[in-house]
Amino acid sequence: MDLQVTQENLSKALGTVARIANTRNTLPILANVLIKTVNNRLTIAATNLDIAITHVIGSKIAGEGAITVPARLMQDFVSSLPSGVITLKLEEQRLHISTDKYQSVINGISAEEYPVMPAIADGQNWKVAGQQLRKSLQQVVGAASSDEARPVLTGVYVHTHEGSLYMVATDSYRLAEKRLGTNKDTMNLLVPATAMQDLLRILSDFDEEVSITHDDQQVLFRVGTVELVARLIEGQYPDYRRLIPKEFATSAKLKRAELVNITKVSSLFARESAGSITIEADNKAAQVSIRSIASQLGENTASASAEVTGGGGITLNSRYVLDGLQVLDGDDVQFSFNGKLEPCVLKAANTDDYLHVIMPLKS
Amino acid sequence: MDLQVTQENLSKALGTVARIANTRNTLPILANVLIKTVNNRLTIAATNLDIAITHVIGSKIAGEGAITVPARLMQDFVSSLPSGVITLKLEEQRLHISTDKYQSVINGISAEEYPVMPAIADGQNWKVAGQQLRKSLQQVVGAASSDEARPVLTGVYVHTHEGSLYMVATDSYRLAEKRLGTNKDTMNLLVPATAMQDLLRILSDFDEEVSITHDDQQVLFRVGTVELVARLIEGQYPDYRRLIPKEFATSAKLKRAELVNITKVSSLFARESAGSITIEADNKAAQVSIRSIASQLGENTASASAEVTGGGGITLNSRYVLDGLQVLDGDDVQFSFNGKLEPCVLKAANTDDYLHVIMPLKS
Repeated sequence: MDLQVTQENLSKALGTVARIANTRNTLPILANVLIKTVNNRLTIAATNLDIAITHVIGSKIAGEGAITVPARLMQDFVSSLPSGVITLKLEEQRLHISTDKYQSVINGISAEEYPVMPAIADGQNWKVAGQQLRKSLQQVVGAASSDEARPVLTGVYVHTHEGSLYMVATDSYRLAEKRLGTNKDTMNLLVPATAMQDLLRILSDFDEEVSITHDDQQVLFRVGTVELVARLIEGQYPDYRRLIPKEFATSAKLKRAELVNITKVSSLFARESAGSITIEADNKAAQVSIRSIASQLGENTASASAEVTGGGGITLNSRYVLDGLQVLDGDDVQFSFNGKLEPCVLKAANTDDYLHVIMPLKS
Repeated sequence: MDLQVTQENLSKALGTVARIANTRNTLPILANVLIKTVNNRLTIAATNLDIAITHVIGSKIAGEGAITVPARLMQDFVSSLPSGVITLKLEEQRLHISTDKYQSVINGISAEEYPVMPAIADGQNWKVAGQQLRKSLQQVVGAASSDEARPVLTGVYVHTHEGSLYMVATDSYRLAEKRLGTNKDTMNLLVPATAMQDLLRILSDFDEEVSITHDDQQVLFRVGTVELVARLIEGQYPDYRRLIPKEFATSAKLKRAELVNITKVSSLFARESAGSITIEADNKAAQVSIRSIASQLGENTASASAEVTGGGGITLNSRYVLDGLQVLDGDDVQFSFNGKLEPCVLKAANTDDYLHVIMPLKS
């Protein structure tokens, strides 16, 4: 290997891929990034065996070659270099990195030992606008579980239902469902939420169409010159639709910012009770009020004006309410429920393509 | 107690004092702030027994009184309220805090149980411009030790020497000395670095003259309507002046930003060796170069142009070099040393009022 690359391009590519290289893995080479010349361009890649990310950048290549080097050191080093041209030269397993004022040698491990994820031979393909996918993932991915005991809940469920494409995530305490529009093909895949988080980071740097291809085992997201491949989660996603109430005894429409603020203030008094707050909707007073009690510290009641139909109360975890409110669109929120035992639904007042469902706490 | 205060003033005062209230203390009341009417104004105060901070704010007082309430809850709550007027009313030991939309009750502990630091009856007083004191403290306080085994090194040594006032701190690995100008009185006090850190935070909010009064036991800093009292550290400060070399065999003048950058890059390869980097000054090549070696990972050499007199090398902890460079003034730095065994000195090329001294590592 003997090539020249700009500091800007190499630093950006390392920033995209190095995050998934992991020093805590039992396989030491997984702490490395793969640097490899392919067809007169330079490929920077990393994998944790569940997810692989590859970024291809332009390069002036005088000699082909491949090596893996420690991801964190390589990324920190290249990002600290001044902008300009960097020369990479491989001598045996040692990568020489040099600029005008910096000469460095990093000891590598042979690229032949680096694990490769199988290619997707022949799968279903569709395309979606990058910013639409980004927005949708931001609204959904936070509701996925991180508990490996129920693997299906650690995924984002991408599927078609009655001609529309949906993304759903739930950790069984709250659920987020986003409709991405109509789709004629039938689709049904369960993508790890961690892969979706990595995809989100990539989408924040690229404003391009995303091409998605999947087979039974894997899914490939292609954005610009970046590819992310993830192993799909196996298993049957729960029949979540029957958990979402269709009609409501009580519904309140109010300013999202005000509901955020009274929830935040109330949560200060709910630290002793694991975030438990009681939300009351009052038709006559035309307000939503939140009450929280900390037996040692004191108590709080906060209220906000609202258009209310019906009336009543429900006890919720304040953190889940804040998480839900944070990803809603628009200035106004519609907050609806059926008494203290059924899940409540948060949605933007002016759109129907996103629902955030929260299970009540016993009060 | 029955009074009205603006959310802005109360939130700012709580922000100034609440930080030193400590929930980990064995005395539960030290997790509280004291709220007390004094001469038609409102006093907000906290102490950790070593340091006490008091902030006096304007208030419309209908009834006098005093109470202590949990500092963190009170601060978080008031800072979350919308701007406007807040009413505080005390009923027995319960503080009622209310605005238009928020009603809250916080359980307090009697103000009579709150510890009071003794007043400074009759001490030496001097004044210094707030921004000058702030700048000087920023340059010095980071070099103090946090190791309670040698209490004198956890202080900032404020003293006069040959007609000038100095502030000094050292943890025995590095030393920072700032001259604040001439002073005719003799002064000699050792202020806890933690109190100086608190004073720095206060100075960042106030651009006013600071009045300093001390006796044998305590020092009082008064800035605007804020007062900070700290217990002085007892003991003899080391005779640090004999450790600072007066003449140098090698000296290099170079751009501070370039020395920062080559030190940072070199430190990436010095993680295995506890930050050890070797700096060489070369008269003929007119450059300073830094070499670091990580036996497992690789090695690095980085250089920057410099005006060099003499020549040679010294091995230092890269973190101390970066800490020192960060608090220097000006674009150019003067880096001077006498071989590998004596301390080196970093200073701004164009001023003599600040020295940063670093002990070498064995290489």
